Amino acid sequence: MTSPEADAHPSEQPKLSKKAAKKEEAKLEKLRRRLEASSAVSASAAPDEEDPLAVHYGEVPLSDLQSKEEVGEPYTEVGALAEEMKGNSVLVRGRAQAIRAVGKKMAFVVVRERGFTVQCIVTEQEGSVSRQMVKFVASLNRESIIDVHGPLTVPSSPIKGASQQVEIQVHKLYCVGKALPTLPINLEDAARSEADIDKALQAGEQLVRVNQDTRLNFRVLDIRTPANQGIFRIQSQVGNIFRQFLLSEGFIEIHTPKLIAGSSEGGSAVFKLDYKGRPACLAQSPQLHKQMSICGDFGRVFEVGPVFRAEDSYTHRHLCEFTGLDVEMEIKKHYFEVMDIVDRLFVTMFDSLNASCKKELEAVGRQYPFEPLKYLRKTLRLTFQEGVQMLKDAGIEIDPLGDLNTEVERKLGQLVLEKYGTEFYILHRYPLAVRPFYTMPCYDDPAYSNSFDVFIRGEEIISGAQRVHVPEFLTKRAEACGIDVKTIETYIDSFRYGAPPHGGFGVGLERVIMLFCGLNNIRKTSLFPRDPLRISP
Amino acid sequence: MTSPEADAHPSEQPKLSKKAAKKEEAKLEKLRRRLEASSAVSASAAPDEEDPLAVHYGEVPLSDLQSKEEVGEPYTEVGALAEEMKGNSVLVRGRAQAIRAVGKKMAFVVVRERGFTVQCIVTEQEGSVSRQMVKFVASLNRESIIDVHGPLTVPSSPIKGASQQVEIQVHKLYCVGKALPTLPINLEDAARSEADIDKALQAGEQLVRVNQDTRLNFRVLDIRTPANQGIFRIQSQVGNIFRQFLLSEGFIEIHTPKLIAGSSEGGSAVFKLDYKGRPACLAQSPQLHKQMSICGDFGRVFEVGPVFRAEDSYTHRHLCEFTGLDVEMEIKKHYFEVMDIVDRLFVTMFDSLNASCKKELEAVGRQYPFEPLKYLRKTLRLTFQEGVQMLKDAGIEIDPLGDLNTEVERKLGQLVLEKYGTEFYILHRYPLAVRPFYTMPCYDDPAYSNSFDVFIRGEEIISGAQRVHVPEFLTKRAEACGIDVKTIETYIDSFRYGAPPHGGFGVGLERVIMLFCGLNNIRKTSLFPRDPLRISP
Repeated sequence: MTSPEADAHPSEQPKLSKKAAKKEEAKLEKLRRRLEASSAVSASAAPDEEDPLAVHYGEVPLSDLQSKEEVGEPYTEVGALAEEMKGNSVLVRGRAQAIRAVGKKMAFVVVRERGFTVQCIVTEQEGSVSRQMVKFVASLNRESIIDVHGPLTVPSSPIKGASQQVEIQVHKLYCVGKALPTLPINLEDAARSEADIDKALQAGEQLVRVNQDTRLNFRVLDIRTPANQGIFRIQSQVGNIFRQFLLSEGFIEIHTPKLIAGSSEGGSAVFKLDYKGRPACLAQSPQLHKQMSICGDFGRVFEVGPVFRAEDSYTHRHLCEFTGLDVEMEIKKHYFEVMDIVDRLFVTMFDSLNASCKKELEAVGRQYPFEPLKYLRKTLRLTFQEGVQMLKDAGIEIDPLGDLNTEVERKLGQLVLEKYGTEFYILHRYPLAVRPFYTMPCYDDPAYSNSFDVFIRGEEIISGAQRVHVPEFLTKRAEACGIDVKTIETYIDSFRYGAPPHGGFGVGLERVIMLFCGLNNIRKTSLFPRDPLRISP
Repeated sequence: MTSPEADAHPSEQPKLSKKAAKKEEAKLEKLRRRLEASSAVSASAAPDEEDPLAVHYGEVPLSDLQSKEEVGEPYTEVGALAEEMKGNSVLVRGRAQAIRAVGKKMAFVVVRERGFTVQCIVTEQEGSVSRQMVKFVASLNRESIIDVHGPLTVPSSPIKGASQQVEIQVHKLYCVGKALPTLPINLEDAARSEADIDKALQAGEQLVRVNQDTRLNFRVLDIRTPANQGIFRIQSQVGNIFRQFLLSEGFIEIHTPKLIAGSSEGGSAVFKLDYKGRPACLAQSPQLHKQMSICGDFGRVFEVGPVFRAEDSYTHRHLCEFTGLDVEMEIKKHYFEVMDIVDRLFVTMFDSLNASCKKELEAVGRQYPFEPLKYLRKTLRLTFQEGVQMLKDAGIEIDPLGDLNTEVERKLGQLVLEKYGTEFYILHRYPLAVRPFYTMPCYDDPAYSNSFDVFIRGEEIISGAQRVHVPEFLTKRAEACGIDVKTIETYIDSFRYGAPPHGGFGVGLERVIMLFCGLNNIRKTSLFPRDPLRISP
């Protein structure tokens, strides 16, 4: 496991001072007050009482939203609306993404549901749609949740502003979840690509660019963009493929405690807390407990769960809390057995994402363009020494028994891509000195270890190794690494009751999606990210 | 969500005082020292150097276990050994579960791997098995990991002491992971049922009963019993069914932060910590963030992750850390839509467990006998008022607007079983006063709420409800419940950007397995349990 400090590049991400953070908070508070005020004003926009067609539109009163009716007319998903349903009367629920009035007799609403959009037309019509209804629709606040009833029509020319090539001729329209008239982020702005901003600028138009802190402050709005909807649907799929692959290979899923006595690996900074009067901390990884599960005869285990790092890392690729995908397994002969699992698991994952997440990947690419990941059917394996030699041949001298920093990792990634045509590869036989105490040294050279890192697009996403399963040797290694053996006694004791040779690896879920999609910041792939300066929302 | 304090029964579980806990720790330390001493002694048991057949057995030196050879003879799993393989030479790896010498020329070893066992026979034979090898095998420490080579034979009479009906005629045997000669728990003792202990007692024999604290102190040994192997394989399966069902229903998996500013629900005690100089706490549930994900347009979400409760609950069913299975979804009309998911999810789960975990359920039942869960194809739904009436008819008067305590819940479970023939049912329309502030009141009676609890064998495992999605009303409800609205501002703000009606539920993973298998303590279904007195191993 690479120490997060080793590759922290403060220059990559401007460090927000505490003062700046406080200022940001004050700004938020001011906005909040403004929002609350505007909310009070907009509440008065009720439908006209004199309109005899008033039952066809309006804000649904709270009591009607409190599970009053068990069933009603069935809803159709916006994404399911198709030309062959022409003439059918449908009911959809979604957000009023865009609203445009054309005079006083007509209004257009684009309704969005789960990334799909449909154009809805409200036209004054005797006996069904009143002028007041058109006015009500025209005055809807964007992002409000609305129910739209009406027959489907198919226009003669293609619809550009919506994903579905049908229109709803609105007969009834109700608001079931009202949004504020002014939102802190405009969805259109949040969904815009850098390319579009540049293009507009060349045409003399200055479009709004929503900066990352604003996005994260109003994450609930930000995650509604097509790119973000795609990112988190891909993330769900990554977790699913990870589990299904491992279950099919005889692994079982475990859940290990996050509250532990002492520090979990004796490594980097931990979050400390008081546990019923005793000192405790949050697990920096399930490392020790997943190994104990192997000693407990589960053979092959995996875990998906949060890991906590109290590091002051202000980089594009570090978080204080992220989702760890962890694997541990008995090995018969060689740590290559673990690398074989990594190889097949990730090739399966990439294949599966490319096949089943086409729409989501396209949505991400529209805002953040990227090239599909280049990977081989059989993953390339290089030894650390081979990597050092490749760098040397390219004129980069590094300590052959030291670790690689982020910059050197990137450079090596480039060289590997040029020589082998892959952006996904395994580097193994790392120097022992740069790996954790529980890493098994190589049988033929104790300066190296039975360990590996895995890279996507030049960045590390996986660390793995064979572990020391002999308690006496484990104690010696811990002492050699300056760890107080007293603090990890129950862990070491686990190996005294008979332990099989074993190994495993850990993956950062957020990094997998970030690098597969060529994104530039891990905060884009964490739903509610936590870094040294951010603990909300 | 039932407050854990409300049904804490201190009498159900003797509360260990801090003094007693310290005493327990001192005992452990003493045992540890003894174990270490015995380890030093046993290390001298090396194979006889004068034996010309010495290469056929012995302890494998460390260097041979450091990934020296990439591949070797393939291993066969103990569970795969079958009569049709008769005559084949096999190689298996497993634990020396039982060792018995018959004179100096013969020894038996029962080898266990993932719950399956095979009998191995070592007989002195010229040119292959020496008397020293028999001695080596006879002196193996139980629970050591060994490699056994030899041809399979099929005995004429059934084998009682092993699961596989074949024997290995051992030609070679190596130890790859040595256990201490004296283990803190004898696996045979740990795997014994109460019935067997009683039966032996009637026959005048006093067998060892391993108490729960000892089991948990040496959990790595304890989880090797067939019952525990079954429990955690069932647990893995429960998680898998939960996810697969929800994914097939259009849900996506999310990961919400466990580190949060302020208390997560304003409810029961939280674990507090320092987050880079700011006060923070551990999430008591993903409640707020899963609702925010619904406001963020994911439509239907679920999460599997740890939840933290700093309660002083010393009961058979409370832990300070457990695995939450959480669901949140948009609803169109009624909270019954959420109950429909609960209904189909759990009927699917029970069906699937009964079909795919037969062996595991049998293993659990052999040590902890239980009747298969009785459940209906369509889950029974009773209103809270109907439940109160059933209790009244049975002579039990309770506050019609209060909560049910554990004892009353059990009683109601009995009544329901008698009347409806099910041990799995939903109780809904709970009094508003006993539910969290974000629960939607009933449209027709604000004293009740659109909420439900679900019971297995008379114990609550699920809490769910429709949530308040209107920010002004949510603020009012929070204030009415005495919550400082300032502390949950970002949560309430999420609903100001347009929120759909929604609802959801939370399940405790450990409780599902405990109650499905009729176990008497939640510590049996948590891999490394955490309670007010336990934070290790």
